[in-house]
Amino acid sequence: MQRRFLDRHRVGHLATADRNGAPHVVPVCYALGEDTLYIAIDEKPKHRAVPLKRERNIAENPAVAFVVDHYDEDWTRLGWVMLRGPAELLAGGDEHVKAQALCRARYPQLRTMRLDGLPVIAVRIARVASWGDLRAS
Amino acid sequence: MQRRFLDRHRVGHLATADRNGAPHVVPVCYALGEDTLYIAIDEKPKHRAVPLKRERNIAENPAVAFVVDHYDEDWTRLGWVMLRGPAELLAGGDEHVKAQALCRARYPQLRTMRLDGLPVIAVRIARVASWGDLRAS
Repeated sequence: MQRRFLDRHRVGHLATADRNGAPHVVPVCYALGEDTLYIAIDEKPKHRAVPLKRERNIAENPAVAFVVDHYDEDWTRLGWVMLRGPAELLAGGDEHVKAQALCRARYPQLRTMRLDGLPVIAVRIARVASWGDLRAS
Repeated sequence: MQRRFLDRHRVGHLATADRNGAPHVVPVCYALGEDTLYIAIDEKPKHRAVPLKRERNIAENPAVAFVVDHYDEDWTRLGWVMLRGPAELLAGGDEHVKAQALCRARYPQLRTMRLDGLPVIAVRIARVASWGDLRAS
C-alpha cells in the first residue's frame, strides 16, 4: 500500500538539517529501490565549488526525512507516507548508475540531461510512517 | 510575488528537527500574517498526553523550514518559496485567536472544527528563499 502510494506520486519533499539542527526542505523527484530511496540531483549549483544546501547538510548530518502526500479539498481523502533514515551521497559506482537509471525510468524529463557527474542521494530507509487515505490518487 | 505564490497555494510542507537534529516533515495548511506564518493544528494526537511530533520538536528545537511549491510535468514551470525561522507554539491569547481566524478564512474545512483548545504554530519569518517560476499556478 505504501509502496504503491509512492510509485503513483510524482513529487516528494526532502527535509535535511545542518550540524546545528536547522532544517531545510525542498521538493524533489525520487525513485524507490529495494530498501533505499533515491533522489537524483539534476541541478548544477550556482557556484560550481559549492554543493547544494541539501548535499552540505547530509555531509554534516546524515539524518533525513522524506514525505509524499496527496492533497485534496476533501480532507477525508488526505494521506501521506513518510520515510526516515540516514542518507548518503553516491558519487559513482554501480549503485549510482542503477539509481540514475531508476530515476530516468520514472521521469522522462531526466533522460536528455547529463547526470553522469552529478551525485545521487540514497536514503537508507529505517522507519516508515503513514497517515490517512493512501488509496487516493 | 512570493506572497502571492503562497496565497495562491493550498498546502505547504513543514520541516522540524528534534534536539539531535533528526528531521521530520509533514504537509500542513497555513496562513500568512504580517511577518509570521501560522499553521493551525487541527488534529488531536492519538494519545492525549503526548503532543504531535512537530510540536515536540519545536519545543526541543525551534528552528523550522517551510516550503510551498508548484509541481508540473513541464519542469521549466517548477517553482518554490521557502521560509525559515524560529517557531513557537501559541496556546492562547490575542495572537492565537487571530491566527486561527486567518486559517479559518483560508480553509472552510476548519470552520466547523473545534480548534479552541488546540495550539497554533507561529513561524517568525527570518529568511525567505525562492527558486523557479513563481507565476505558475
